[in-house]
This record gives sequence, C-alpha cells and structure tokens, in this order.
Amino acid sequence: MKIGIIGGTGDIGEGMALRLSPYHEVIVGSREESKAVASCEACAAILAERGVAECSLRGVSNQCAVDEADIVVLAIPFRHVAPTLRSLSGFEGKIVISPVNPIERSTFFYYAPPPEGSAALLIESLLPKSATVCAAFNNIAAAKWKRLDEALDESVAVCCDDADVKRQVMDLVNGISRLRAYDAGPLAAASMVESVTPLLLNIGRYSGMKDVGIRFV
Amino acid sequence: MKIGIIGGTGDIGEGMALRLSPYHEVIVGSREESKAVASCEACAAILAERGVAECSLRGVSNQCAVDEADIVVLAIPFRHVAPTLRSLSGFEGKIVISPVNPIERSTFFYYAPPPEGSAALLIESLLPKSATVCAAFNNIAAAKWKRLDEALDESVAVCCDDADVKRQVMDLVNGISRLRAYDAGPLAAASMVESVTPLLLNIGRYSGMKDVGIRFV
Repeated sequence: MKIGIIGGTGDIGEGMALRLSPYHEVIVGSREESKAVASCEACAAILAERGVAECSLRGVSNQCAVDEADIVVLAIPFRHVAPTLRSLSGFEGKIVISPVNPIERSTFFYYAPPPEGSAALLIESLLPKSATVCAAFNNIAAAKWKRLDEALDESVAVCCDDADVKRQVMDLVNGISRLRAYDAGPLAAASMVESVTPLLLNIGRYSGMKDVGIRFV
Repeated sequence: MKIGIIGGTGDIGEGMALRLSPYHEVIVGSREESKAVASCEACAAILAERGVAECSLRGVSNQCAVDEADIVVLAIPFRHVAPTLRSLSGFEGKIVISPVNPIERSTFFYYAPPPEGSAALLIESLLPKSATVCAAFNNIAAAKWKRLDEALDESVAVCCDDADVKRQVMDLVNGISRLRAYDAGPLAAASMVESVTPLLLNIGRYSGMKDVGIRFV
C-alpha cells in the first residue's frame, strides 16, 4: 500500500513519515514540492543515523501524493481542510485518513465541530462518494510522532463506515510502534474521538503534563 | 467529610458506597428511604464478608442525604437530573459532584448534551449560586464500581471552577482504589469529559470489550 501524506512537512506529517517509511512506501506531499523533497531528505538522514538503511520516502506536491497513493492521510490543521480539499482532485476510490480535530481555545481548549458534526464528516462531504473516509490517529500528540526514541504506547480509536477499509487502517495502526487500534464505530461517531484531543490538551495545561495521550483499558 | 449519594441504590451509587464507606461517612439517599436502608444493609454485609469491620453507611431519603452531606454525588441517569434537582432543596454551600453523562443511542452511542452545553453546566444552572459543581467519575463503567475484587485502575478527569473544591474532590478520587485524578480545567470543559463515555461504550460494542475505561498517559 502506498501511503500519501498531505501536509507531510508539518510535525504530524514528518513524524508519520519517519514511523511509516521503513515499512511502507510513503509519498510526502506539500503545497510546495521543494519543501516536501527537503523534508524527505531530512527524514531519511534521521533514519540513516539510527541505522535504518532502507526506507521509502519521496517528496512531491499534495496533488501528486493524492494521485499516487492508495491511502491518503490528511495531516493538516482543521482550518486548512476545506481549502486544501477544494484545491485537490482525484480522490475517487482512495482511502482517506482523518487525524484532524476541530479545536478552539478560550481560557481552555474546546471542541468546535463544523455544522456537519465532525471534521471527519466535513471531509466526507467534500470528497467524491467513492472515497472512503476513516478517522484515526486523532489523539496522538504531534510532538510524540517525531520522538523516535520513545515508543508510541497509546490507543487509537478508529471510525469508518466500510468494514474492509476499517480493517486495513487498523492493521496500519497496529504496525506502528506500540499503537493499538480500537474499533470505535461508524464515521458518524468520530466527533467523540476528535473531542478527546481538546480534553487531553486541557489535562496537559491544567495538570502540568506534556503531550498527554490515552489508553483504553 | 460526609458524602451523600443521591440515587445511591443504583449500580454506581451502591458501588461508590462500597468503595467509600470504609474511609468516609457515607449517606445513601433514595427516593424511597426503605430502599436506601436495604441497600446499605446489603453493602455492609458484603463488606463484612470481606473482613471490613468498620464502615459508615446510612440509608435515608434523597433530601436527607443533601441536608446532612458536605459533598453530594448525583449518581442518577441524565434524564432524572432536572426532575430530581427540582424536587430537592438545601444545596446552598454544598459541593456537588456530577458523574452524569447525557448519552443517546442510534446504531451507536453518541453525546447528546442539553442546551447548557453539558450535564455539569445544566446541573450548575439548577442549583443555588453558593453550591459548587464538580464533574468527576464520568468515565468509569457502572459495573466496575461494584467488582471489589478488581482494582479501579483508571484515570479520572475533574472539572471545576473553584480551586479548593477541585483539590478536595481530586483528593477524594485519589483515595479510591487506584484511581488517579487529573485536573481537566473549568466546569465549562466538562462536555469533553462527558463525551468520552459514549466513545467508551462504542469501543465496548464495536471492539467486543466490556466496561472499557481510560488512562491518560
């Protein structure tokens, strides 16, 4: 499976590229192809330093990442979702993973979903019917992806309406570090997964912790 | 501190009475005092069987539980919250703990908060200004409270606007089994704590697990 990362030069995107490219063919997309190429060179150097001789990483434009990938990960902030998806095409038949969380901040962080009910449902509404959206990786702190010395020892709730796609994404999750995938129901249930993230940010802030994650027990 | 449990004859109420009464003075309230008395006798027998010689458990009416307690726990389903609070008085100066989650169910479980934004904020709106509401214990499965052979090895997010009250409730949480309290911000942030519960119910249902809980890591 070829995995394309839209917004692949951000923290989550780079971290996912680092964790996935030793095992999968990863295509890193960016609005500027040159940034994606530079990010891939930096990631390959980091992996080489750690003794990872082989990894499959290639920097391209966001549109190329969509065109070439089987699974497309939207590693972009919520506010960029609609403009980015409107600027891209070719999602027909693709699996689209949303780790996106609509969050706002007053004195505390809070969940601020769009009228569709969640980022996942908004994304579904912007894509062709033959694309299959799957919410996953929503609750992992961006900084944790890039700290390769630390295992990602957390739970990942996965929401999707297609059982086969859900299984594929859960297998992908379970192959990363010590992540464990949990079936959390249909895509319409993704709002409750997304809203865990502002809770974790509040716990971080008010309990004085960093990069808080969750485990289901 | 005297702890009054409103709806103390339900699963969560009885479980809390079992876990708290060896260490605190617990006043179990019910709409029918006779039910509260019977529940306390049953709980005392269970504790005696387990070698707990001393526990402080007393069954009374819900109103008596409010009147006598310093901390009042609302161990009632969301749909009973408004009618129950309207039927009771005397909350002035009390600490009121809400483990209440507004949840509905279609093919999956979902968070269905009232117009106030959360059960916690609805409860605050129904009580006198001198009462202090604190969201806690929202994400612990009812059945787990009563299984005394199992440690409650989970995290508890606590939301409250009063720092002293929050500290008292966090201390109460940390004294129960292996529960660990986390400061999750002001009461207005409780919606994100409450909405974890339908997520856990969905994971239970779709992942084939029982009584799913969470840990913050």
